[in-house]
Amino acid sequence: MEEKILLSHGSGGKQTNNLISDLFIRYFDNEIISEMNDSAQLMLSSNKIAFTTDSFVVNPIFFKGGDIGKLAVYGTVNDLAVSGAKPLYLSSAFIIEEGFSIEKLESIVKSMATAAKEAGVKIVAGDTKVVEKGGVDGVFINTSGIGTIYENTHIKVDNAKVDDVVIVNGTLGDHGAVIMCERNGIGIDGELLSDCAALNSLVDSILEVCPHIHVLRDATRGGVAAVLNEIADSSGVSIELEESSIPVREEVKGVCELLGLDPLYIANEGKICCFVPREYAEQVITQMKKHPLGSEAAIIGKVVESEAHKVYLKTIIGGKRIVDMPSGIQLPRIC
Amino acid sequence: MEEKILLSHGSGGKQTNNLISDLFIRYFDNEIISEMNDSAQLMLSSNKIAFTTDSFVVNPIFFKGGDIGKLAVYGTVNDLAVSGAKPLYLSSAFIIEEGFSIEKLESIVKSMATAAKEAGVKIVAGDTKVVEKGGVDGVFINTSGIGTIYENTHIKVDNAKVDDVVIVNGTLGDHGAVIMCERNGIGIDGELLSDCAALNSLVDSILEVCPHIHVLRDATRGGVAAVLNEIADSSGVSIELEESSIPVREEVKGVCELLGLDPLYIANEGKICCFVPREYAEQVITQMKKHPLGSEAAIIGKVVESEAHKVYLKTIIGGKRIVDMPSGIQLPRIC
Repeated sequence: MEEKILLSHGSGGKQTNNLISDLFIRYFDNEIISEMNDSAQLMLSSNKIAFTTDSFVVNPIFFKGGDIGKLAVYGTVNDLAVSGAKPLYLSSAFIIEEGFSIEKLESIVKSMATAAKEAGVKIVAGDTKVVEKGGVDGVFINTSGIGTIYENTHIKVDNAKVDDVVIVNGTLGDHGAVIMCERNGIGIDGELLSDCAALNSLVDSILEVCPHIHVLRDATRGGVAAVLNEIADSSGVSIELEESSIPVREEVKGVCELLGLDPLYIANEGKICCFVPREYAEQVITQMKKHPLGSEAAIIGKVVESEAHKVYLKTIIGGKRIVDMPSGIQLPRIC
Repeated sequence: MEEKILLSHGSGGKQTNNLISDLFIRYFDNEIISEMNDSAQLMLSSNKIAFTTDSFVVNPIFFKGGDIGKLAVYGTVNDLAVSGAKPLYLSSAFIIEEGFSIEKLESIVKSMATAAKEAGVKIVAGDTKVVEKGGVDGVFINTSGIGTIYENTHIKVDNAKVDDVVIVNGTLGDHGAVIMCERNGIGIDGELLSDCAALNSLVDSILEVCPHIHVLRDATRGGVAAVLNEIADSSGVSIELEESSIPVREEVKGVCELLGLDPLYIANEGKICCFVPREYAEQVITQMKKHPLGSEAAIIGKVVESEAHKVYLKTIIGGKRIVDMPSGIQLPRIC
């Protein structure tokens, strides 16, 4: 018989402790979480830190190229990395539906452990709640994260400057397209995978050649469109994109046509928008391309002066249209 | 018409941004969260920190003496405080059901803001996810927290020593009893309220007179029984409780009799178990009693040498029984 999560696994008693020891501590395996204190005790190398949180409710839990656990680790690692911080420590808090398969839970925890190792972070604090059947759909995970901020970087959402070049590290829309396909039962030719990845080593490598990066953002929910609109708005500038330069996989284009979606609005889980002074653009692109997560890096646009604080797209056929902030229901439970 | 949460409030676009500005940033109101970067940028006074996380799924969301928001702030503040840390910064991540009342959400956020102010912490990072109707029951909140660890304290779960005195700061089982009453529609005489409270100022005040506290734990899920069993087990000692000394309100005794529960196993949200060397017991009790959250403080037992690493209760009628680690379903969604 398949082992399942029971309400008692969340009661704070014997079964909770067993689940914590046999699963979480076993896989996350580090000296800090093993102490099982109410808080993780950490000694940082600096007292200038970045702190972030994200909950993950993706549906389906397992998808091509990843799962909710991987996403939960990478998502928080990336939020730290794009803040110019070195990701160090993560917490992980599970809300699990009564009756959820322990085998599936184990596979998620294992995946988190692998992702954390790969990203060079430790999962040091946790929490487990179990909710009665129907009170939550499967499993939701929150990760919060801490990193130390690099000296001499000034990466901020309101720091985009006129003439900055906008660079992305690869094709757009892969994650969202995969989730949409799985949810709608769409089979596609080729091996389209979620792009979910830890971006901290890529960020490190570009900061090496260009500490003067003005803005970095990972383009998750709402896609590149949401991120660029936020940057334009906060920085008081406009952004002009070249449609012909935007890298999008053929498979993703196909899915978008089928579902009536725009790749600019689709979630990515391993893509950054990077604003750099024009004179560093070449160096940053070259450096990105050396990295496995940047081989398809491209300059997709530039920052221009304008009162409007808008994002424009110069289309392939020579037109120009506004790329507005996404509005209404996009793709629920994409991450 | 009552305003309700829509899926678009969680899409990362316009509606998400409006919700963040109009609700979260408005109430949490501090210069760090207002920056709206991917991570909060914090400058700490020390690089020795405590880091903790907790998800809150309490049902009902509003109860006598508190609500899920208050609980979410105090719970994480308390986890930091009992680790010998000064709570400083919190994150708050909401998972909200489509159709949830915005008025109720506002009241929860307001309550969190008040609780944070009272506890002297800032809510600096956040996340909002919206899940389709039926995908989550109402609203769940995760808070993670950071604090700086006080110098010269050595508070650890495995640090209980033979002859330590076990002190609690007041009556046991209030929170759990309130939740049970609300859930079962039990009306009780008198004004029984959840004890949910921020314990950091109480902890500060006792550390002032006794930096040599060996163990501190807040007795939440699983009650005092779970906490003491964990301490006995980790520290390799046994604990002997005096039933006659354990403070329990008459109303809570009544609820327990009605529902067949034991106050030692019921969740508290404003109670700590404090292990101090015998010679400091008097001072700690006196200091606690001066504090509004410690007026009913009591010595409930002591640490004894024993191979068994168990918790015993010397009953009022002169017997002695084992207080075992809670097992099975206790009280789901108590916090």
